[in-house]
Amino acid sequence: MKVLKIPEPTVVRLSLYSRFLNQANDKGMDIISSDEIGVAVGIPSAQVRKDLSYFGEFGIRGVGYRVKDLCEQVDKLLCVNQPWPVVIIGAGHLGKAMATYKGLLDRGFEVVALFDTDSDAIASSASSEEVSDNLPIYPLRELERVVQEKKIKMGIIAVPAESAQSIAEALIQTGVASIINFAPVVLNVPEHVEIRNIDLTVNLEVLSFNLGMRSS
Amino acid sequence: MKVLKIPEPTVVRLSLYSRFLNQANDKGMDIISSDEIGVAVGIPSAQVRKDLSYFGEFGIRGVGYRVKDLCEQVDKLLCVNQPWPVVIIGAGHLGKAMATYKGLLDRGFEVVALFDTDSDAIASSASSEEVSDNLPIYPLRELERVVQEKKIKMGIIAVPAESAQSIAEALIQTGVASIINFAPVVLNVPEHVEIRNIDLTVNLEVLSFNLGMRSS
Repeated sequence: MKVLKIPEPTVVRLSLYSRFLNQANDKGMDIISSDEIGVAVGIPSAQVRKDLSYFGEFGIRGVGYRVKDLCEQVDKLLCVNQPWPVVIIGAGHLGKAMATYKGLLDRGFEVVALFDTDSDAIASSASSEEVSDNLPIYPLRELERVVQEKKIKMGIIAVPAESAQSIAEALIQTGVASIINFAPVVLNVPEHVEIRNIDLTVNLEVLSFNLGMRSS
Repeated sequence: MKVLKIPEPTVVRLSLYSRFLNQANDKGMDIISSDEIGVAVGIPSAQVRKDLSYFGEFGIRGVGYRVKDLCEQVDKLLCVNQPWPVVIIGAGHLGKAMATYKGLLDRGFEVVALFDTDSDAIASSASSEEVSDNLPIYPLRELERVVQEKKIKMGIIAVPAESAQSIAEALIQTGVASIINFAPVVLNVPEHVEIRNIDLTVNLEVLSFNLGMRSS
């Protein structure tokens, strides 16, 4: 396979295709058309064909793609053909929601530990089944040990805005350089670190902006 | 103010500026430069100036912007100078995390009700303080009544993938046409409905793709 520079919007779409293709493969489908993929993921089929032209050899002109082969190649490109252990910092509702979200494990992302500074949250995890059975909540001082033991490269920040910067620094110090940040704050990080922000408020404000435009 | 077609990436950045400008205004700052805004939100100052050129009259050449006036105008454009009542469907960890997230109310988005089909979740909300004091969890059959009573235009879907489409349809039937969807599935909706998907897995896969590219 050629290694090309693939723009981020394409990577996002490949992730959507991959999820659908894996479902199709699990159902035993052999061949799939760009139209079928497009309808399933809500993307025009011409765009699907363009994106999948990176994987030209799996297309059969006028027929479609071999599901199994295409699946494997897309997953390989996305690097989801290998497991990725992940840590979550913040064991509130959001951290627990992410920790118990089955969709992550389906795609190879295994949450191996939650961390919190709140000793109540930590104590309660010992006795209750609030998170899942095998998922401990550790105090933050254990972060470095766990990250190194489990060779973790990805972290999810699910703490309040005021703690997010120091949590990011703690993660980076342990060697985690790929971070999802749910806190509504811009994190200052070194250049080699990749942060992706998921910001509910910003998304709601795009909605309110569009509602405003419609009614004006 | 001129009404111009503003592209979505600009709206996203305006939302970030607005959050910061409101904080600056609360601290009593009078004038702010594009450099200061840029550093705070992690966007190059030339881009800040370009985005804020929509609000030209609040810039003082060589000095900066009048914080209070700029704040008001940006908030007006984003339509966050008015309250937006919001409903959340799904009272699991994710729904509760969103419902108790203070950042929403700070920006005028008030979660007025949670809905769930799980009668255990509903019963427990009557006796415990798991969500907040004034936030009831209703059974889904109450959705239409609440949406109409409270004139709700925005909904957040925080249910598993397999229920998300039917929940979207229920929301749309009540008149809610602006939806945030956390379920990892593409929703089929009429053209007048705006869906914004927030997908953790896709974000993690952009990280794994980039980690793979770096190490290859």
